[in-house]
Amino acid sequence: MPENDKQGLSVVTCTAPVNIAVIKYWGKRDEDLILPINSSLSVTLHQDQLKTTTTVACSRNFQQDRIWLNGKEEDINNPRLQSCLQEIRRFSRKRRNTGDSTSDASSVSHKVHICSVNNFPTAAGLASSASGYACLVYTLSQLFGVESEQLSAVARQGSGSACRSLYGGFVQWKLGTQLDGKDSLAEQVESESYWPELRVLILVVSAEQKSVGSTSGMHTSVETSQLLKYRADVVVPSRMEEMIRVIRERDFPAFGELTMKDSNQFHAICLDTYPPIFYLNNMSHRIISLVHRYNQYYGETRVAYTFDAGPNAVIYTLQDHLPEFVQVVRHFFPPEVNGEEFVKGLTVCSADLSEELKRDINMEPTPKGIRYIISTKVIVGLRKPTY
Amino acid sequence: MPENDKQGLSVVTCTAPVNIAVIKYWGKRDEDLILPINSSLSVTLHQDQLKTTTTVACSRNFQQDRIWLNGKEEDINNPRLQSCLQEIRRFSRKRRNTGDSTSDASSVSHKVHICSVNNFPTAAGLASSASGYACLVYTLSQLFGVESEQLSAVARQGSGSACRSLYGGFVQWKLGTQLDGKDSLAEQVESESYWPELRVLILVVSAEQKSVGSTSGMHTSVETSQLLKYRADVVVPSRMEEMIRVIRERDFPAFGELTMKDSNQFHAICLDTYPPIFYLNNMSHRIISLVHRYNQYYGETRVAYTFDAGPNAVIYTLQDHLPEFVQVVRHFFPPEVNGEEFVKGLTVCSADLSEELKRDINMEPTPKGIRYIISTKVIVGLRKPTY
Repeated sequence: MPENDKQGLSVVTCTAPVNIAVIKYWGKRDEDLILPINSSLSVTLHQDQLKTTTTVACSRNFQQDRIWLNGKEEDINNPRLQSCLQEIRRFSRKRRNTGDSTSDASSVSHKVHICSVNNFPTAAGLASSASGYACLVYTLSQLFGVESEQLSAVARQGSGSACRSLYGGFVQWKLGTQLDGKDSLAEQVESESYWPELRVLILVVSAEQKSVGSTSGMHTSVETSQLLKYRADVVVPSRMEEMIRVIRERDFPAFGELTMKDSNQFHAICLDTYPPIFYLNNMSHRIISLVHRYNQYYGETRVAYTFDAGPNAVIYTLQDHLPEFVQVVRHFFPPEVNGEEFVKGLTVCSADLSEELKRDINMEPTPKGIRYIISTKVIVGLRKPTY
Repeated sequence: MPENDKQGLSVVTCTAPVNIAVIKYWGKRDEDLILPINSSLSVTLHQDQLKTTTTVACSRNFQQDRIWLNGKEEDINNPRLQSCLQEIRRFSRKRRNTGDSTSDASSVSHKVHICSVNNFPTAAGLASSASGYACLVYTLSQLFGVESEQLSAVARQGSGSACRSLYGGFVQWKLGTQLDGKDSLAEQVESESYWPELRVLILVVSAEQKSVGSTSGMHTSVETSQLLKYRADVVVPSRMEEMIRVIRERDFPAFGELTMKDSNQFHAICLDTYPPIFYLNNMSHRIISLVHRYNQYYGETRVAYTFDAGPNAVIYTLQDHLPEFVQVVRHFFPPEVNGEEFVKGLTVCSADLSEELKRDINMEPTPKGIRYIISTKVIVGLRKPTY
């Protein structure tokens, strides 16, 4: 139950995770409802390393809705924020009217104060809108006593990929066919416990320039890329089927290869956009090259990369290969001595590299090319509220 | 007439130009005959700045065919070289047998010594195979008295894009439909005198790593890129029609935009290849960004870029806009003081930049990001032999 003191103040706090797509979402068929042109699939990451924490307070004494992001007040009239607030309040009233509400829903007519913080630096270049909107919508739903299958549709209207952060493990966001978007929802493919050996590294590189935001980027891609429609209509549907199959079979080589191909195709679409959009930089290219050379050395896909709308790499690998690959990264991107901790998050055991491996990879080391690594894994989605 | 002294030595020297595609060739449907999966269109550049000069000597005293490229002897058994030599000799014999030969064709049974040099440094990163094979095939044809519509089919078997270097001005290489490739030929769309205002700049950047060669690159693209087939079958046919139309209309904004889009799509296909191929580097990205910001300032496409299988930009613009754009490049990529000449080739007048233009472009200058510029224009194709 939300705390509800004598001043009529209710407070709820929840947390939500970041998700990283392995089949990418790029392009909307409806900009207002945020309906995508293709289905997508993501992996939800552990909250110890990456999460958003949102507290919503609600009181009859509040004069207006307000929001603070990472300590700074932002404009509550942002249309996407407004969509989420209105939708949750609409659901709450509906439940109250039908007598379904399990909590004190009188608060629905009160104004809210929202406070949202991320435990990861903005510099990590990870989209915080997914975890942010997922957390906002979930926290509001708890406060207003809303329990709905439609929560992911509400989160989707904040930020498309936010709908996937409502679930843990492996999550697909189905395209849907309805005009009102009611069937464009996220659903869990497999839980986080299905493939516990899967590990994740985020390689944070030094970005030299600000990139195009993903909202305007995907808008321009839909308007100008001739290849995007073919990707959405022909390529992705079969890739979605294949991705679900290889996750269910825990087939890492197939999972890794398809993940890399889809990341590459997303960035190809960005390049086919006019004017072209570049999210990968020379350092991203070097990481891609390192991963392919490492896999080639073993004659199998042991490590896979994926890149979102920025130059940082997200690496998927299996627990057994993690220590060696981290050592490979450390060797070819030597970190600053006496600098900040290079590997943050989950502990990675040390490993020795054979001279043969280093020789076969045959790359010139790039000192300080990677600022740091966040080591994490796949995990459950939202954390239940604390009152 | 080839020189034919008492020792039975015949010598012919010809030159051939470089061509730069504006609708890109990427992918073969037949690797042996070098038949492309799509038509392409290029602009032939002036030979004063960029050319191959080939001398072929032929004598009954030569023991074997031999070849020297830029002063270094190379393997004459290279299959593509052999294709060209065999095809030209076959045509020569055919003409002699039908009594069509206009020159002393007895030399066809003699061995040849081939010497080929480029007037541009390898560091310019310009594919020399197009001008090289065009020049070889044309010089051999002159020596052996072959005059055939099929010369471009022979050059094509040396290097696909070589067929386009047999003509000046604006040249298309038609895909063709025949299995034997006899209709996969180059033909002139318009001559070099059709659009004399068109100017060309080659921006030579510092490449930091060697890229994948175009032969193996396009092979891997055909094998792995799901987007390439769509590009070849659906996108390029309509782009070819549009490109021919805008050249005929001398519509620079439309020509420039389509040129940029096709360059970007070619590099998108490279990225959709598995493993992905990167020809553009950070400096290429900055040049692309500069061109778009410059055009945006004027609200029209005054300058266009295209990139082949490497990081150097080829810029198309009109004579009127050339001085200012070169000054823009000089401002945002300040050359080394007291270094080598920055602008080589055709003289470019100086120009002043307004503060407003510099401010609106709003880019951090990158000192020494561009090594030098080659200034040139569109011109006639082959140069007739000197004996």
